[in-house]
Amino acid sequence: MTRNPLGKVGQAKEITSLSNPVIKDIRALNLKKNRDRTSSFMAEGLKLVIDALDQGWQIRTLVYGRDAKGNAPVEAVAARTVAAGGLVLEVPQKVLGAITRRDNPQAVCGIFEQRYAVLGDMHPKPGETYVALDRVRDPGNLGTIIRTADAAGASGIILVGDCTDPFSLETIRATMGSIFAVPVAKADGSGFLQWCDGEDARLVGTHLEGAIDYRTIDYAAAPVILLMGNEQAGLPAALAERCDRLARIPQSGRADSLNLAVATAVMLFEARRHLLEV
Amino acid sequence: MTRNPLGKVGQAKEITSLSNPVIKDIRALNLKKNRDRTSSFMAEGLKLVIDALDQGWQIRTLVYGRDAKGNAPVEAVAARTVAAGGLVLEVPQKVLGAITRRDNPQAVCGIFEQRYAVLGDMHPKPGETYVALDRVRDPGNLGTIIRTADAAGASGIILVGDCTDPFSLETIRATMGSIFAVPVAKADGSGFLQWCDGEDARLVGTHLEGAIDYRTIDYAAAPVILLMGNEQAGLPAALAERCDRLARIPQSGRADSLNLAVATAVMLFEARRHLLEV
Repeated sequence: MTRNPLGKVGQAKEITSLSNPVIKDIRALNLKKNRDRTSSFMAEGLKLVIDALDQGWQIRTLVYGRDAKGNAPVEAVAARTVAAGGLVLEVPQKVLGAITRRDNPQAVCGIFEQRYAVLGDMHPKPGETYVALDRVRDPGNLGTIIRTADAAGASGIILVGDCTDPFSLETIRATMGSIFAVPVAKADGSGFLQWCDGEDARLVGTHLEGAIDYRTIDYAAAPVILLMGNEQAGLPAALAERCDRLARIPQSGRADSLNLAVATAVMLFEARRHLLEV
Repeated sequence: MTRNPLGKVGQAKEITSLSNPVIKDIRALNLKKNRDRTSSFMAEGLKLVIDALDQGWQIRTLVYGRDAKGNAPVEAVAARTVAAGGLVLEVPQKVLGAITRRDNPQAVCGIFEQRYAVLGDMHPKPGETYVALDRVRDPGNLGTIIRTADAAGASGIILVGDCTDPFSLETIRATMGSIFAVPVAKADGSGFLQWCDGEDARLVGTHLEGAIDYRTIDYAAAPVILLMGNEQAGLPAALAERCDRLARIPQSGRADSLNLAVATAVMLFEARRHLLEV
């Protein structure tokens, strides 16, 4: 998708057919390989598109349904899209539904450029908390964790190893817009550990075999990097043994019974307990 | 679905066609109206089926894929099903995939009788915590909350008003088996409040406009009923004004930025902080 292939800045292009190549390209973003190839992704809904623009994300294409024509906030977003060099498309509701794979689609969706933070540029400072996720698999979990990180005031997310795509539609939905606010970096296992070694931060892993009650750790002594293991396997030994602390969340009943996003939230609110005020 | 229509106790019935009426009935459980009519639901996977049997849930039908034939744990579960008066079906993988709506289905699934706890039979005792959910909408959220309640040692869930079905496939999946361990009751708003009035328990609502830091509440003074509002609307005034305390989880950034399952988990681990030990 090149920018403004139609050369009609300032004007919405009306497209009615699902077989239009621009619409086909947008629908193809459903697949990770196409998102990777074009380095783009889709965000649905006026709120998310405005969040993204407000946070300086580069919009490539704005698509709105015919029903939203003349709607002032939609017109405003269309104008911002044009000003940013993006393309604006007006489509029938059924095309919007097909693009977003919903029966009742939101009024608009936007195609944005992907953006990752560079891990080497992240330097944890006192009072900062980072969340590192080892091979997180579930798109909903990742999105919810990004949303929680935003709410708890974490400074960034590090995706370690082969993780689910943070720019999938399902993850973006679950972030509720926090994807635009929380820096997300990625690294392989050794790159992550190398980065940890170079930073003055405490690596706190959550581990089933962790011996330390998560509430007894001093999270104020240094910046904290919370390391959470994969949904199925937990933290591998290679990562666990490099942690400064291995924390355990006390649980009644069966072992390993917390959902990953829930466990991350419980850890995050504990690690930032001394920093959060009503 | 009557029990053992085939009258062949002790023997698996082989079914190969998706158009078989028993298979059709099972697939129809995808719809809430059919689950309600038959008061049954499906649980996938050997672990969940064993959990359910261990917790005394009544199995009506066990379905296993041909690939699992001769597998000792599957045979054991089949024998338990027969002993409980249930029907055992052997089906091709593609039928199992169609039943569970998965490309790679688990080896078995079980059809169980629904079971609700009766609210009037719940009498919160010292050290107990209950979670009441006002019109929870998202099946994944409800399932994750049931799972978290189990892990945190809560004594029961109360579904208030028009909630998503706890026996939908998506909710059951998200509970990871905790549906079989945590009592779930339901009530309308006034029935719930009437119950609260009759019990010696403290009703703690989580509310955006709650003035009290959730960490400053004395959760040890009396049994606690945590009341969580709906995903979109939060707690309605009629419920909020009856709460003994309105708690707030401090959040950086935007208001209302926590997912419901995450907010419930943060509240639960705080309310049971004095009771949980590693």
